Amino acid sequence: MTITAGIVGGTGYTGVELLRLLAGHPQVALQVITSRAQAGVPVSTIYPNLRGHIDLAFSEPDTEALAACDVVFFATPNGTAMEMAPALIDRGVRVIDLGADFRIRDLSVWSDWYGMAHSCPALAAEAVYGLPEQGRDAIRRARLVANPGCYPTAVQLGFLPLLEAGLVDTGQLVADAKSGASGAGRQPRQHTLLCEAGENFHAYGASGHRHLPEIRQGLEAAAGHPVGLTFVPHLIPMIRGIHATLYGRLLDPSVDLQAVYAARFADEPFVDVLPPGSHPETRSVRGSNMVRIAVHRPEGGDMALVLAVEDNLVKGAAGQALQNLNLMFGLPETLGLQGIAVLP
Amino acid sequence: MTITAGIVGGTGYTGVELLRLLAGHPQVALQVITSRAQAGVPVSTIYPNLRGHIDLAFSEPDTEALAACDVVFFATPNGTAMEMAPALIDRGVRVIDLGADFRIRDLSVWSDWYGMAHSCPALAAEAVYGLPEQGRDAIRRARLVANPGCYPTAVQLGFLPLLEAGLVDTGQLVADAKSGASGAGRQPRQHTLLCEAGENFHAYGASGHRHLPEIRQGLEAAAGHPVGLTFVPHLIPMIRGIHATLYGRLLDPSVDLQAVYAARFADEPFVDVLPPGSHPETRSVRGSNMVRIAVHRPEGGDMALVLAVEDNLVKGAAGQALQNLNLMFGLPETLGLQGIAVLP
Amino acid sequence: MTITAGIVGGTGYTGVELLRLLAGHPQVALQVITSRAQAGVPVSTIYPNLRGHIDLAFSEPDTEALAACDVVFFATPNGTAMEMAPALIDRGVRVIDLGADFRIRDLSVWSDWYGMAHSCPALAAEAVYGLPEQGRDAIRRARLVANPGCYPTAVQLGFLPLLEAGLVDTGQLVADAKSGASGAGRQPRQHTLLCEAGENFHAYGASGHRHLPEIRQGLEAAAGHPVGLTFVPHLIPMIRGIHATLYGRLLDPSVDLQAVYAARFADEPFVDVLPPGSHPETRSVRGSNMVRIAVHRPEGGDMALVLAVEDNLVKGAAGQALQNLNLMFGLPETLGLQGIAVLP
Amino acid sequence: MTITAGIVGGTGYTGVELLRLLAGHPQVALQVITSRAQAGVPVSTIYPNLRGHIDLAFSEPDTEALAACDVVFFATPNGTAMEMAPALIDRGVRVIDLGADFRIRDLSVWSDWYGMAHSCPALAAEAVYGLPEQGRDAIRRARLVANPGCYPTAVQLGFLPLLEAGLVDTGQLVADAKSGASGAGRQPRQHTLLCEAGENFHAYGASGHRHLPEIRQGLEAAAGHPVGLTFVPHLIPMIRGIHATLYGRLLDPSVDLQAVYAARFADEPFVDVLPPGSHPETRSVRGSNMVRIAVHRPEGGDMALVLAVEDNLVKGAAGQALQNLNLMFGLPETLGLQGIAVLP
Repeated sequence: MTITAGIVGGTGYTGVELLRLLAGHPQVALQVITSRAQAGVPVSTIYPNLRGHIDLAFSEPDTEALAACDVVFFATPNGTAMEMAPALIDRGVRVIDLGADFRIRDLSVWSDWYGMAHSCPALAAEAVYGLPEQGRDAIRRARLVANPGCYPTAVQLGFLPLLEAGLVDTGQLVADAKSGASGAGRQPRQHTLLCEAGENFHAYGASGHRHLPEIRQGLEAAAGHPVGLTFVPHLIPMIRGIHATLYGRLLDPSVDLQAVYAARFADEPFVDVLPPGSHPETRSVRGSNMVRIAVHRPEGGDMALVLAVEDNLVKGAAGQALQNLNLMFGLPETLGLQGIAVLP
Repeated sequence: MTITAGIVGGTGYTGVELLRLLAGHPQVALQVITSRAQAGVPVSTIYPNLRGHIDLAFSEPDTEALAACDVVFFATPNGTAMEMAPALIDRGVRVIDLGADFRIRDLSVWSDWYGMAHSCPALAAEAVYGLPEQGRDAIRRARLVANPGCYPTAVQLGFLPLLEAGLVDTGQLVADAKSGASGAGRQPRQHTLLCEAGENFHAYGASGHRHLPEIRQGLEAAAGHPVGLTFVPHLIPMIRGIHATLYGRLLDPSVDLQAVYAARFADEPFVDVLPPGSHPETRSVRGSNMVRIAVHRPEGGDMALVLAVEDNLVKGAAGQALQNLNLMFGLPETLGLQGIAVLP
Repeated sequence: MTITAGIVGGTGYTGVELLRLLAGHPQVALQVITSRAQAGVPVSTIYPNLRGHIDLAFSEPDTEALAACDVVFFATPNGTAMEMAPALIDRGVRVIDLGADFRIRDLSVWSDWYGMAHSCPALAAEAVYGLPEQGRDAIRRARLVANPGCYPTAVQLGFLPLLEAGLVDTGQLVADAKSGASGAGRQPRQHTLLCEAGENFHAYGASGHRHLPEIRQGLEAAAGHPVGLTFVPHLIPMIRGIHATLYGRLLDPSVDLQAVYAARFADEPFVDVLPPGSHPETRSVRGSNMVRIAVHRPEGGDMALVLAVEDNLVKGAAGQALQNLNLMFGLPETLGLQGIAVLP
Repeated sequence: MTITAGIVGGTGYTGVELLRLLAGHPQVALQVITSRAQAGVPVSTIYPNLRGHIDLAFSEPDTEALAACDVVFFATPNGTAMEMAPALIDRGVRVIDLGADFRIRDLSVWSDWYGMAHSCPALAAEAVYGLPEQGRDAIRRARLVANPGCYPTAVQLGFLPLLEAGLVDTGQLVADAKSGASGAGRQPRQHTLLCEAGENFHAYGASGHRHLPEIRQGLEAAAGHPVGLTFVPHLIPMIRGIHATLYGRLLDPSVDLQAVYAARFADEPFVDVLPPGSHPETRSVRGSNMVRIAVHRPEGGDMALVLAVEDNLVKGAAGQALQNLNLMFGLPETLGLQGIAVLP
């Protein structure tokens, strides 16, 4: 079986990573990739690493061409997928949106954070949040998957075992998160120039970041009730990788955190719980779809400390999208996603 | 007036930074710099940036030569200063130790963390902790100053206003701290190779780091009672800079944090409280003795969020040592420390 | 004596470096700094490292305010200085242009490379090329100084002794040059994003770079006849620094290159000839106005190999401009330029 | 068919890259990996990216275990392979040495550069230099392959078309080469610390580098006569990648360089000649076995300029070793080597 795929908006970092992964997937054939700005330009002109692997050129967005695919990925700025996806879904195409259009259930919250009205409430209600570790079955049946954000993936996976088992005081969770600059995209902007972001470190969005409501929604689903979360993202002077440092006060400090995490993720192909005492490195997942997690209880006290790393472009974006595709089409979940992290 | 100075152990990063700053100080004359391994080698051979500025060569440690100085800096591995300082102090030399030998008041705590017995309890009791913002007067009179660690400087300065004014729940403070690799020193070690530390990010010492007891001691002095602190350091893929992200639960969320911080540091020449909404960047203090701090209350809730940056080699080491020298010898506190951060 | 200065267009990297250096110069008072885009914004808002050092705000370009200065620096895109400088010079202001408007004597060559007609041929003929090591006296008397480009400074200083003494075959000189990304400026452009320029290395402009005619002009002046030069620039994944690797075939391999270079630069305050066998590092001049040079004759053959490093923003731009100011106003040439490179 | 393989000395960067590639090769089964220092330690403890992919532990060097393999790779310091390989070859094991023991035909030259006598001249005479693009057939039949060095691979492939066709003056070739720090290995050494090699650029070995005789040997084989070569390596502040900038004076400037290169490498699976005007980026081959080459004739003159990039750990080491294995065992040459460069 070959699944035919299309990509809308593939010139950014999420797009090139999706192309790299699709080129190595044995059962997906990329048929079309659109970009208004680059229409007519071979993909490999913009991304020379794909020379010899991807022969397509970018094309103008064309609903007919996209509708002929089994699945279409949206790697577009927020607001695009909600305009284009309905017509495709009506024609039987399954859609995976790597943007934020369908991630938030409460559309008034969505509008507050994304600064526009939602044009497609019905599909938003139907969309399935694509975090396989939290809801694999629903993804299998979904027509429309909202692929999670990069920070939300790491933070939710790190907190899930604590919240699902009711182990921490959910009133005062802290997620101190750090990301490489590729999370900010390929659009030229001053603050992500090498001379601005290199040899430098700072927080941003301390008063509120768009990933906060998405994370909170997921944590509340896991906990079964509202949670109090402080989320502070920081920019690391590097390209790929997210490190989430998570703090939660244990209700019962005698719990065996290592055992809880090992059990929770025992069957998960893309979550690796490290041995006690570990400090996961972002490079250990660079280019791969793995999340690696370590748990600590500093000085044996009542604070649970969770360290989680992912590649923001893979498990935090394109890899997870492909994992969702595998689920949606009944393929082995790990197909095309077994690449080993490139280290050093 | 010219103050004559000596340095014991000046081949590391703290040493070269001290040399750079001393070369620009109008009232200090460097007389001697010792290094057993590099005896006879001109300083500028190892550090070509000093060519034309420092003509000295490293010499064998020699008590007579050091005793002829007004002040001696120790930039040595832990355990050296406590052996050599007593003889110098007996002969009237004032000592500034950039290592950890005299930082911890409780010597049993010190021994636990540093893995050796303290050879000099009397001096340890007399030593003054050299954080000018917390105890300027005692430093002026000190014969022996224990220069604070790099993380402790940033974390203490960030937390002080909250603790001195009793504004937060001191039972659950969190200090999520990040440092460039120069904090790990110039000794060749695998984990600080470019190929290990570059394009990578991870926590370390999550189960306990030597700076934890030092920080706790300072915070408890400020609060007037024991505090509960979780301190997690991380390694940033860059050379210079520390970023401390500090979390404390406000007892009364209506407090005007900005005003509290502005008032507390109004007269401090080396602490800059940024305007509301700021995110200090480590590069804004690179090569300078400034600490820049911003305060936030995310989503207007009850969490105080403090962001503090310093150059770990300047305010976190050599610059603060020079600030202490200025205090000890009655010079203007900012003398030789007015250099502007190099940006970009 | 205090010299009053103005800056036109100070928001880029050359501008902020000029501000940093001027703030430390004891005899220059900055009166005005213009930026159409940032008019009204305090300089220290854009460059927090200048907080407490520069109190000015950017202002709209205003000829009256500029004409009241003793000297005006242009740190503007090419084409601006040739429009604005004439009126200032007419009113007795001395001008230092950090752009390229007045660097090339042959205006048809200039027009070919810069893509516009020159609006001010008379001043172009009068302008003095501001490389003090090549023509200090003319600079002292100049009304208008064309401050050299970053690559040209390093390449010319490296080649000068060979060409002035007629030691090499000038028909086939090779300058393989490498620069940090700050040379490309602070305008957001895709290829200087951290995610594009980081962990990456490549040549650019191999078919011709604007600095080529400027370098050739200088080398020909030194040689006294036309030269054949291949100049290939590369982008280094770092912020500051240029490394020029220069190759010239010796006409007489028995010449003592080390002695030639040592003699040529013996009296130059900002050119440091390293001991035989050295490999200068860009970081050894980071933030300083020094050029460091080493000479080799690989395998004792007939190839002269010259390695030269500079900080592209200092000796390659703002520092050299200040050096020129010192010469123009009869100040000690090194005034305000004694800062030591920040290392590590 | 499954080929059983062993690795001697797999703890360095060449080793981990070989492990990553072998884990993805469908017809090689890794049986044994030795390391005296790490015997008993699981490979994935040292290299967490291999968790779940490589279950082996390092073992003590054991000739019996190695002799049971079809092929053994040596990723050892120079001098080890020449001691251990003979016994293995005698027992029918085929050997690929990633070190330098068998690269140089003239053993007196070898001894001069590597500072030891060669213990195994007979095998040195038999060994086949493993650059498939230059001698594929001999590799197929070889019992012992000397895998080329990283610089030599890039420089030779870049120069080959010019030399084979006699297009340039071979008396004055220049190879200005730049490498990421992983080429210097994983042994802790001061000059490759992040704080020394980061934000810094410099040449090294300007008076002579071990790769020089290896390159010269290859170029002379291609040219059919002695060549004059100046080779200057530089250290780039990044992890992976080599960029060779090659200069040769054309005997007849009217030659169509682009056509020459396109024809020469038309059938090579791992050499990609870029379109005219290109500047290959090291990141375009990061993690892949490709070499990408562009040719220029600056200003249409008589200088041939060749720009070549490779990943020093892949085509410059482990990937080329696997390519050689494929040739030696009659497998498709590209098997297991189709991975796409990770970009950004």
